[in-house]
Amino acid sequence: MHSSDCLLCQTPGGTVLWQNQQLRVIDAGDALYPGFTRVIWTAHVVEMTDLTTAEQAELLRVVLLVEQAQRAALKPDKVNLAAFGNVVPHLHWHVIPRWQDDPHFPQPVWAALPHADATAQAAQEARRTSVRPQLNAYYQALVARLDSTLLGGPA
Amino acid sequence: MHSSDCLLCQTPGGTVLWQNQQLRVIDAGDALYPGFTRVIWTAHVVEMTDLTTAEQAELLRVVLLVEQAQRAALKPDKVNLAAFGNVVPHLHWHVIPRWQDDPHFPQPVWAALPHADATAQAAQEARRTSVRPQLNAYYQALVARLDSTLLGGPA
Repeated sequence: MHSSDCLLCQTPGGTVLWQNQQLRVIDAGDALYPGFTRVIWTAHVVEMTDLTTAEQAELLRVVLLVEQAQRAALKPDKVNLAAFGNVVPHLHWHVIPRWQDDPHFPQPVWAALPHADATAQAAQEARRTSVRPQLNAYYQALVARLDSTLLGGPA
Repeated sequence: MHSSDCLLCQTPGGTVLWQNQQLRVIDAGDALYPGFTRVIWTAHVVEMTDLTTAEQAELLRVVLLVEQAQRAALKPDKVNLAAFGNVVPHLHWHVIPRWQDDPHFPQPVWAALPHADATAQAAQEARRTSVRPQLNAYYQALVARLDSTLLGGPA
C-alpha cells in the first residue's frame, strides 16, 4: 500500500485541508497560483485505471467538488484538471483556478514562464492580491461540502 | 449548444476514431507523441461541472477506457490525463501515453522542449518507431471497447 521511497507516501505533499481513508485534499501553497489544490489518493497507486470503478468515482467526485468550490468562491476564468504522476508516480490530481491575467495563461502552468513586462507583472500581483481574501471562504466551503458529501476524518 | 467561433464546435479537432451523440474520441496526430488521444464533448460546454453527474460519469468513463486501451496496447511508462481548455474553452480531455525516454519526460508535454543531444534524439526516434506498429492495435481495441460499452455511431 505504501512505498518507502515515494514522496506522497512519506509526506502529506502540502497543507492537508481534508482527508478520509481513501484520499486527502491539500492546499498546494503555490506562490503563483493561489487556490491551487491537489487531491491525493492515500494508497500508492500509479494510474487511475489501477483503481476499482468505485474508487475512481470517489476520487473524481472529490476532484469535481474541488472544481465546484473553486468556481463558487474564487470565480476563476477557467479551472484546469490534470493527473500526470511522471515525477511522483503516486496518483494525484491537480485542480488549478486560472485567470486570463495569470502568469502562464492561456498555457498550462507547467509551460515555460512567459516574459511579463512591468504592467503585466503588476496585473498578476493585483490578481493574486484580489484572490487572497476569498481563499478562506473557498477552503471553508470546500471542507463543509466534503464533510456533507463524504465521510471525512480530522485533517 | 454550438458556438460559431469555437474551433471544436466547427471542426473535429483531429481524426475521429469513434463518436456518439455526447462525445467523440480523436487521434490527435501529434508528431512527438504517437497515440496522443483526445476525448471531446460534443456540446459547447466549458467546465466538467457544467455537465450533469451522469454526463460527467460518461465522459470520464470514456477517458479511462482510452487510458486502459493505451496501457494494454502501447505499454507506456505512464499515462497523463488533463483537461485545460484555456486556449479552446470547449470541454476536452487529453490522454497521452508517456515514456521515460520521450522528449519531455518527466515534464508534461506542454513544458518547454528540453535540449536533447544526438543520443537522446536517436532514443526518442527509436521510441516513436517502436510505438508506431502498435498504434493500429490500440485504435482497433479502443473502438471495439467503446462499441461494446457505449452506443456509438459511425465515425
